[in-house]
Amino acid sequence: MERRRVYLPEKEIPRQWYNIQADMPTPMQPPLHPVTQKPVSPEDLLPIFPMNLIEQEMSTERWIDIPEEILEKLLLWRPTPLHRAYSLEKHLKTPAKIYYKNESVSPAGSHKPNTAIAQAYYNKVAGIERLTTETGAGQWGCALSLGCSLFGIELKVYMVRVSFEQKPYRQLMMKTWGAECVSSPTRETEFGRKILEEDPDTPGSLGIAISEAIEDAVTSKNTKYSLGSVLNHVMLHQTIIGLEAQKQMAMLGEYPDVVIGCVGGGSNFSGISFPFVRDKIHGKDVQIIGVEPVACPTLTRGPFAYDFGDSAASTPLLPMFTLGHNFIPKSIHAGGLRYHGLSPLLSRLVLDNLIEARAYNQLQTYGAGLTFARTESLICAPETNHAIAAVIEEAEKAREEGRSKVILFNLSGHGLMDLSGYDSFLAGKLTDYSLSEEEMKESLKVLESLPQATK
Amino acid sequence: MERRRVYLPEKEIPRQWYNIQADMPTPMQPPLHPVTQKPVSPEDLLPIFPMNLIEQEMSTERWIDIPEEILEKLLLWRPTPLHRAYSLEKHLKTPAKIYYKNESVSPAGSHKPNTAIAQAYYNKVAGIERLTTETGAGQWGCALSLGCSLFGIELKVYMVRVSFEQKPYRQLMMKTWGAECVSSPTRETEFGRKILEEDPDTPGSLGIAISEAIEDAVTSKNTKYSLGSVLNHVMLHQTIIGLEAQKQMAMLGEYPDVVIGCVGGGSNFSGISFPFVRDKIHGKDVQIIGVEPVACPTLTRGPFAYDFGDSAASTPLLPMFTLGHNFIPKSIHAGGLRYHGLSPLLSRLVLDNLIEARAYNQLQTYGAGLTFARTESLICAPETNHAIAAVIEEAEKAREEGRSKVILFNLSGHGLMDLSGYDSFLAGKLTDYSLSEEEMKESLKVLESLPQATK
Repeated sequence: MERRRVYLPEKEIPRQWYNIQADMPTPMQPPLHPVTQKPVSPEDLLPIFPMNLIEQEMSTERWIDIPEEILEKLLLWRPTPLHRAYSLEKHLKTPAKIYYKNESVSPAGSHKPNTAIAQAYYNKVAGIERLTTETGAGQWGCALSLGCSLFGIELKVYMVRVSFEQKPYRQLMMKTWGAECVSSPTRETEFGRKILEEDPDTPGSLGIAISEAIEDAVTSKNTKYSLGSVLNHVMLHQTIIGLEAQKQMAMLGEYPDVVIGCVGGGSNFSGISFPFVRDKIHGKDVQIIGVEPVACPTLTRGPFAYDFGDSAASTPLLPMFTLGHNFIPKSIHAGGLRYHGLSPLLSRLVLDNLIEARAYNQLQTYGAGLTFARTESLICAPETNHAIAAVIEEAEKAREEGRSKVILFNLSGHGLMDLSGYDSFLAGKLTDYSLSEEEMKESLKVLESLPQATK
Repeated sequence: MERRRVYLPEKEIPRQWYNIQADMPTPMQPPLHPVTQKPVSPEDLLPIFPMNLIEQEMSTERWIDIPEEILEKLLLWRPTPLHRAYSLEKHLKTPAKIYYKNESVSPAGSHKPNTAIAQAYYNKVAGIERLTTETGAGQWGCALSLGCSLFGIELKVYMVRVSFEQKPYRQLMMKTWGAECVSSPTRETEFGRKILEEDPDTPGSLGIAISEAIEDAVTSKNTKYSLGSVLNHVMLHQTIIGLEAQKQMAMLGEYPDVVIGCVGGGSNFSGISFPFVRDKIHGKDVQIIGVEPVACPTLTRGPFAYDFGDSAASTPLLPMFTLGHNFIPKSIHAGGLRYHGLSPLLSRLVLDNLIEARAYNQLQTYGAGLTFARTESLICAPETNHAIAAVIEEAEKAREEGRSKVILFNLSGHGLMDLSGYDSFLAGKLTDYSLSEEEMKESLKVLESLPQATK
């Protein structure tokens, strides 16, 4: 019998996260204070994060222990299975072997709880009683609701309006785990009111929602803010995906030729890929591909620059690929990929040619998702479908070249809460969006007055 | 480290289904022809089922081989994990050990694909090109859509109106796998039109939807009908759940004192319990509890009688517990438990005191589901919450009695498509429904003119 899935025994779950900061070939440039534009100190970050997470954010230790209390919660669904996609291979008539790490088995349906559990725990031990956050498609909001529910912390989620309306079940999921979820921009924050005055019909954006959540956190009692992507400690917590995948591939005697993931802020992609990037830094021959939407082409068309993480310019300035912090992407269904910026760690690795980037159109990604659903049987999140589009292209290339190849991708989440996108696709109502040169120029203007980052 | 999950290796997947007809202590009474009221012959069933499934329906062979083509598809997600619910145990402060078989990991989110895959296969090899079916909450419709998608068969699903409206995402899921889904009663069948003329505002029922699907099948070209529960071959296909669970419990050196499942038509409950009922018949001491809604108390208040499986009185008469084939349960969210009848096999085993039945109110089951979601992290289907309510009661009893006890239940499906019920519950908008003696009497009148079944 062909083996379809590899389960890592629970006792083999990684007990340390991998911190790629220890192995970066080029040193990272520091985040800068939004007002002074000087490198931020740990204390500068205290109004929004607890010190234990700030220390992780700045750490250059290669391996960081996962506390037992976090492991206990992660074990509710981890280690996640590694699957071989035989049915997809057969359908594509490809000699390539396609493996996927299935993060959709988490209770929230995606990889996001890996860091949500950790962040809820670190806030809890720091004595924090309430968290705020933003969410795009809702995967992150659901994950943090779960994390806060398991550790007994109050939570308010600012959900990007377009997703709030497209994905009503997401809010219900957050409520079931006890969180409050509101449509962003709200009239409850100063920044939200400002945006609504300028454009009452704004679809919202992650940048706006982040600004609202931060404003709430810094103005509320015993409240911190939690971010589901972009930051170093988030990438760190997600490396458990790739560390497990490496053990599982080894159990099969395999090593991937290509590692693929979709990229929004970068967390699922960093999670699957950083342990492989480490191998690549040490000489291993492995291709690592991040996939983003053509409608939000941060990596493929954005410059590498210092920019704010949010629209209100309240976060530290981060050295990253960016489309400008006021960029509001078109309302594609892959809400989790609608972000103007990108993890600074990931950005640096792209600059250093350790990771390559591709962009796909919405229609192609839904077509890929439908092929996957009708062969492998799983209905994936629209974000994940970006990775699948690249996987199919790689598998078809292998067929044309007549050579075997081992492809590994991260199935970052299921699409059961995102079915309206499939419905529109099947009804022929979806469109592709791309950005004109002029729109790009306009959006990047905000960078002119900011400090320059070094490539 | 405490072991939370047991994965059965793929090569250990059961290769035969268990047919409890071989071990029934009391012989089964035959289904009767709806018109002649004589025992049905295999040929009588040919207009709605292919002969290979009719043979299974009537077989008394103890073990029936699972064809390789079916195993290959089941292996897309099977064997399913067996979990230990440590967090729930801790929360309840119970000495009981709680295990659950997690059928929610299937691509359709429930146990239903176990028989959907099998039925799609047997219809395919019989040369059938199109299937029709009914669905309540939508779990079955989604499962058969998946099955038909994997074997290339066309499918039309008649979905009970109240669920069609409560659970829009279910329809989208069916469409994603290529099926057509309509709200029943429709104006497309004679029976549907009749019902709508009598009561344009009917919430619909499984009985009505079955009648429509059968009418469509018998009046359409190369089309058969497929039923997701009640019939013997469906129970047979589901026994893979219990057979896997037995192997997994054995891997832990455990045997359950209590086996619990929710009961609508009986398929997930039969699936988990029949292999244990077999042990009980052979002298093993194990308590087996089926849980139904107070609003649809087939087992706890219905008589054992010959009755039709559908509202149009077009199916064979089955010897079963029933509330009368015109019974339309109140619109509780557990749509999969809104059925007037019950598997004849299961009914016989209840009569023979091998299985006991309990009924719980809607509010209690949602309370139980919320406790589960906030401890074990999984959001379960409202049907499954009925089983969880009984599990919590048993675990609390064990605490009060101060004795350890091994509880096994079937987590039949996740509730990610059923979140509106949780929302209503949290908002205090859900109500309990129970049936008055008069309503019962009225509903059972239809049985008076039918042949009597022997207890």
